[in-house]
Amino acid sequence: MKELNILYTIQKEKHVQTKEVLKEFDVDWWLTVGRETSMNNEPVLPLISTIDFTATAAIIMTPTKSTALVGHNDAEGLLQTKVFDEVIGYDTSFEKELTDLLLRDAPKNIALNYSTADVAADGLTHGLYMVIQAILQKANYAGDVISAEDIISQVRGCKTAEEIKRMEEAISMTDDIFQNAREFIKEGVTEKEIYDFFHEEMDARDVEPAWQAAQCPGVMVGPLTVTGHKGPTDIVAEKGTVMDLDFGIVLNDYCSDLQRAYYVLDDDETEACQEVQKAFEVVQEAIRRALAGMKPGKTGSEIDQIARDYIVSQGYPEWTHGLGHQVGRLAHDGGVSLAPNKWERYTDREVNLPVSEGMVFTLEPGIRTSRGYVGQEEVAVVTKDGGRFLSKPQKGIYLV
Amino acid sequence: MKELNILYTIQKEKHVQTKEVLKEFDVDWWLTVGRETSMNNEPVLPLISTIDFTATAAIIMTPTKSTALVGHNDAEGLLQTKVFDEVIGYDTSFEKELTDLLLRDAPKNIALNYSTADVAADGLTHGLYMVIQAILQKANYAGDVISAEDIISQVRGCKTAEEIKRMEEAISMTDDIFQNAREFIKEGVTEKEIYDFFHEEMDARDVEPAWQAAQCPGVMVGPLTVTGHKGPTDIVAEKGTVMDLDFGIVLNDYCSDLQRAYYVLDDDETEACQEVQKAFEVVQEAIRRALAGMKPGKTGSEIDQIARDYIVSQGYPEWTHGLGHQVGRLAHDGGVSLAPNKWERYTDREVNLPVSEGMVFTLEPGIRTSRGYVGQEEVAVVTKDGGRFLSKPQKGIYLV
Repeated sequence: MKELNILYTIQKEKHVQTKEVLKEFDVDWWLTVGRETSMNNEPVLPLISTIDFTATAAIIMTPTKSTALVGHNDAEGLLQTKVFDEVIGYDTSFEKELTDLLLRDAPKNIALNYSTADVAADGLTHGLYMVIQAILQKANYAGDVISAEDIISQVRGCKTAEEIKRMEEAISMTDDIFQNAREFIKEGVTEKEIYDFFHEEMDARDVEPAWQAAQCPGVMVGPLTVTGHKGPTDIVAEKGTVMDLDFGIVLNDYCSDLQRAYYVLDDDETEACQEVQKAFEVVQEAIRRALAGMKPGKTGSEIDQIARDYIVSQGYPEWTHGLGHQVGRLAHDGGVSLAPNKWERYTDREVNLPVSEGMVFTLEPGIRTSRGYVGQEEVAVVTKDGGRFLSKPQKGIYLV
Repeated sequence: MKELNILYTIQKEKHVQTKEVLKEFDVDWWLTVGRETSMNNEPVLPLISTIDFTATAAIIMTPTKSTALVGHNDAEGLLQTKVFDEVIGYDTSFEKELTDLLLRDAPKNIALNYSTADVAADGLTHGLYMVIQAILQKANYAGDVISAEDIISQVRGCKTAEEIKRMEEAISMTDDIFQNAREFIKEGVTEKEIYDFFHEEMDARDVEPAWQAAQCPGVMVGPLTVTGHKGPTDIVAEKGTVMDLDFGIVLNDYCSDLQRAYYVLDDDETEACQEVQKAFEVVQEAIRRALAGMKPGKTGSEIDQIARDYIVSQGYPEWTHGLGHQVGRLAHDGGVSLAPNKWERYTDREVNLPVSEGMVFTLEPGIRTSRGYVGQEEVAVVTKDGGRFLSKPQKGIYLV
């Protein structure tokens, strides 16, 4: 039961935040509709509501009030959480009750959770959209129906104090596992063995990987490994090569996502070879520069460009993905990306949106060397004065 | 890796089944679209596809062919599973590739996953619906766009051999736990203690509850307990009263859902009191009669009526919920219900659809007595000759 109380903290914080966001965007009603949440999830619900639903439910947020319209089976549990200003249980007619609320509040506009571009803002199914439209038409609703994507971008993206705290805890535990791995990783271990080590460490702490288990951690051993989404292979760690590990966990519903680089010393070495050393320093400086640029109002592509320009200026090719993504309840969380604005795989929307105070991003540039991929990934939150690390940044490549 | 191979068996079976269903319904294209499955799930995807997607993906099923159009990062993994007849990886333009397939196949109709009535058939988000409509318009598509709800009702509802096997395994493990509980349950234990016992048994087997953990098992001790969705209370088991437990697990992605009744003998008793004994026998006979009626073509309400009529004919009031629901990947799985056709809480669609061979339902009538709720819940599959139990039916009330 303790866990549930912690959860409510976030939802209470989110309700305060949402009311401010709705004032700012001049939206009267933000309407989130879901049903049988075990079958089909609406990514907004865990942020602003507190229990699984067994019948169709509507969450109505206004600049001054939060209302939950839920099946009577679900009403009592929701009342107990004290998150909503108003909880209405219905017996049979969701449609009638929603119509009554519509007539009572007479909102000038209604934001619904659909978006062609942002998956986090596209939780309304087409069938439920048809149901809502039929209700609005029957009630002769004459106001505007708009996408809630801008609202969701703020409410999901800008983390509250409790959310930041949870992410710091997840990051700290992840770092502990990376530190333990310094004893385990050595010449002769395979990608698969490293992968198994991380899963044992997760099991011992009773936590789950932050993304698809088969690819978390992502293990890239030496120059011949494949980067990107893939499971571990039988490639063996050799002297004088780099191991890059991309790993995150979910702890109390919030994710971490870090990359750490390890280097297997050759017989005559006391530090990494010069090529790797140089690449690692350039990656670090790129992260520092991007961090300083993480100020409210900067766009995702502007921040990406800071790191990208620096790495190119040092004579390296551009790395082949964006500088970073949002992190939160998911490892890839929300609709703003730190990424180039001329690459087709990133939408205009995601890279041209300005970042806001409280948004949390990864910073993960990298350089491919003849000894393996040298990457580093830190997590930072946007503040008025530039980014602040939530992770304890890796200082030097780990020598093993 | 073993687990993944088992999964593919189901998906291969589902592809064979789907092609037959599409022939039967005369549908050229069944188009399922999803994106970033970690953020927003489409209930159809786990049935017919094999990996999580990291980019927008389309699954196109025709009466003769299955095609997956996925981001190139996801293509290799999908090819390895050998489930699809064709896997196409795209780099940047999902829209262009889907348009090419549309022009190549020129389907006379396209079924999409939206439904106002059935949550299992309503996985397409409204934003993705807009994306698909824009692609169809740009390609001057002139065929019909229809709901896939009838297709999904068959493909999800009619279980394959491997699905039945998995459900039998989940049911068998559930029964083991119910048997162990016969030693634990006795005079003086509370609802909460019984609840904890079941959770320890699940932990020991490393399985999850089949529905919301806080309400699984549902523990109903004695005449004063509340029925329905609720957590356990401090109510204590007393002599001469009934304990009804509603419990299921998920094992290898498939669920069980059973109810078993226990009776605490009074000092002078060697069997349950007559009132309870009689009620239990009537419930059992109602289940047997409904089972015999579970033939293809019967509607959900017709089957419900068999059990309901019998219980009423024995002088008891109707119990207050449907006779049963589908079971599968979820405890409440699919769009056909065995329930009255005059109750507002069940839609016309769900109770008037005929059942089909291979559909799996719970049968869970009950009678409220002065000693507590006497319920029994079994799981059965529809066959040509009537229902066949997947569970080993409880023979007599468990005396403790």
